[in-house]
Amino acid sequence: MSIRIGIAGYGNLGRGVESAVKNSPDMELVGVFTRRDPKSLQTLTGAPVYSMEAAEGMREKIDVMILCGGSANDLPEQTPALARLFHVVDSFDTHAKIPEHFEKVNGASLESGKVSVISAGWDPGLFSLNRMLGQAVLPQGKDYTFWGKGVSQGHSDAIRRIPGVKDARQYTIPVESALESVRKGEMPELSTRQKHTRECFVVAEEGADKKAIEEAIVTMPNYFADYDTTVHFIGEEELLREHGGIPHGGVVFRTGVTGLQGTTKHVIEYRLNLESNPEFTSSVLTACARAAYRLGREGHSGCYTILDIAPAYLHPESPEELRRKLL
Amino acid sequence: MSIRIGIAGYGNLGRGVESAVKNSPDMELVGVFTRRDPKSLQTLTGAPVYSMEAAEGMREKIDVMILCGGSANDLPEQTPALARLFHVVDSFDTHAKIPEHFEKVNGASLESGKVSVISAGWDPGLFSLNRMLGQAVLPQGKDYTFWGKGVSQGHSDAIRRIPGVKDARQYTIPVESALESVRKGEMPELSTRQKHTRECFVVAEEGADKKAIEEAIVTMPNYFADYDTTVHFIGEEELLREHGGIPHGGVVFRTGVTGLQGTTKHVIEYRLNLESNPEFTSSVLTACARAAYRLGREGHSGCYTILDIAPAYLHPESPEELRRKLL
Repeated sequence: MSIRIGIAGYGNLGRGVESAVKNSPDMELVGVFTRRDPKSLQTLTGAPVYSMEAAEGMREKIDVMILCGGSANDLPEQTPALARLFHVVDSFDTHAKIPEHFEKVNGASLESGKVSVISAGWDPGLFSLNRMLGQAVLPQGKDYTFWGKGVSQGHSDAIRRIPGVKDARQYTIPVESALESVRKGEMPELSTRQKHTRECFVVAEEGADKKAIEEAIVTMPNYFADYDTTVHFIGEEELLREHGGIPHGGVVFRTGVTGLQGTTKHVIEYRLNLESNPEFTSSVLTACARAAYRLGREGHSGCYTILDIAPAYLHPESPEELRRKLL
Repeated sequence: MSIRIGIAGYGNLGRGVESAVKNSPDMELVGVFTRRDPKSLQTLTGAPVYSMEAAEGMREKIDVMILCGGSANDLPEQTPALARLFHVVDSFDTHAKIPEHFEKVNGASLESGKVSVISAGWDPGLFSLNRMLGQAVLPQGKDYTFWGKGVSQGHSDAIRRIPGVKDARQYTIPVESALESVRKGEMPELSTRQKHTRECFVVAEEGADKKAIEEAIVTMPNYFADYDTTVHFIGEEELLREHGGIPHGGVVFRTGVTGLQGTTKHVIEYRLNLESNPEFTSSVLTACARAAYRLGREGHSGCYTILDIAPAYLHPESPEELRRKLL
């Protein structure tokens, strides 16, 4: 029997989940739920579209609802609400608010007797898992997380709010010499500036003061002031052609020492190189939906993160098969 | 209360566990168990040494016994035997026999009501976990495992058995161009020869026929015939000075595609660079001992692998703390 999936929210993430479910032989997509007019949406696979309000009436038709809204405005309300009806999975990524979100979702899931998985993606998600495993295996050591090369939506939006800017794309780029130093096990102390640079591609409005725009970008507190930032002004066509994708990725390192004197060095490196940030996040969400369903079938309820789930729950094959083929 | 650890077997792995336990604030080492004369052993930390037969009488004094014997001759008997008395952890690494070993150990642990964790190390172990997670997240894709640069004990031993060879060290080395092709997401089909080369450092006995030794090495079936192998004859002193360590490591890749048309590429890379293969394996064993103890406290019993354990069990901090700090 297939795992019956619902998708709540139909942006980049929702479309990614739609594809991932299509490519998972043990799953079927029941429908997409939206706060927009359902008639205004056409799904990639032709899956039916329902209004968000229709979800409550479909409790018996859907096993796991995958939430594809944003962490700022959608998930804090939607995840607990839908956790009262279904097993749910979200990619809530406001790191500082994860404990609070966990508590709310956990309460809702315990009440409904369902399973929820929050913060399922790559950071938080697979990167968190690797930070944790690195610390567990090499307790005497240091963590490093580098992001990029990739598009930061938050930083791109910040540039777009500057007067005279028509459109913009910002790439976060790890500093190669910092990566190399960590990779060698040198355990450097790195400032913000030493870890990442920022590269901006900006389309200015006609007649705009480019010098003023550049100055506004590189001095912007929190976003750019602490980084070495380069700004390129380009045409709108070039922006769409060369910078239309949403690639991302990064590296988590754990470097540490073992031995009675702590003199033996080890380096663990986990690297992601993603052509599409939302499609990869969607793939993690979909694997976690499988875990939520299985945990629920075993009678569990409450909220989980990727740190709290035995990894085999994420893979379609049985634990016996996995031991035989992959261990 | 500390987790009370016993070590069964006192070679490189046993000494590595001894150091790892010393560096784990939530653990204490009760003693080392050996089949040799206990009086003949002096431990690094001064921990007491007992005969293997004394283990049965110490059921109340030890929570987890970490097995540090070899997969060929020790663990197939010792792990099930000790699983009747304690929670146990081993690094059984004969891949083809893992299902059989699992069944035997599982039976013993279910009988005693204890928890066992087998095949805890890096391959099998952390590499297996990454192969599995890669498949779960990117179901349309390919796995690659590369080993090295590192010392292969089996291959070194095979060279030592050749007449005229006094001592030898063999390094397994991944082919850089193959790594690069995989890293770029080209998903190449790679033969054995295209993935790894083998480099041998050999001390010949005086008057030995070096040409014959080299020929015997490079044509040796299973071990060397399918690889590009280079042989260097060096002096005994140089071997000990330059090749005395036991470094190892490697890379697990998962490269795959997402999207409805399968056109979006992603690369996941997990790399280990280890100055000491046994010390790192010991560190994984020790983290898994923590997991075994905690699972036991929750009333679980039976056999687990790293695929079957929620990762948070491996880390000394609580799930709440981990969510707050690492997610």
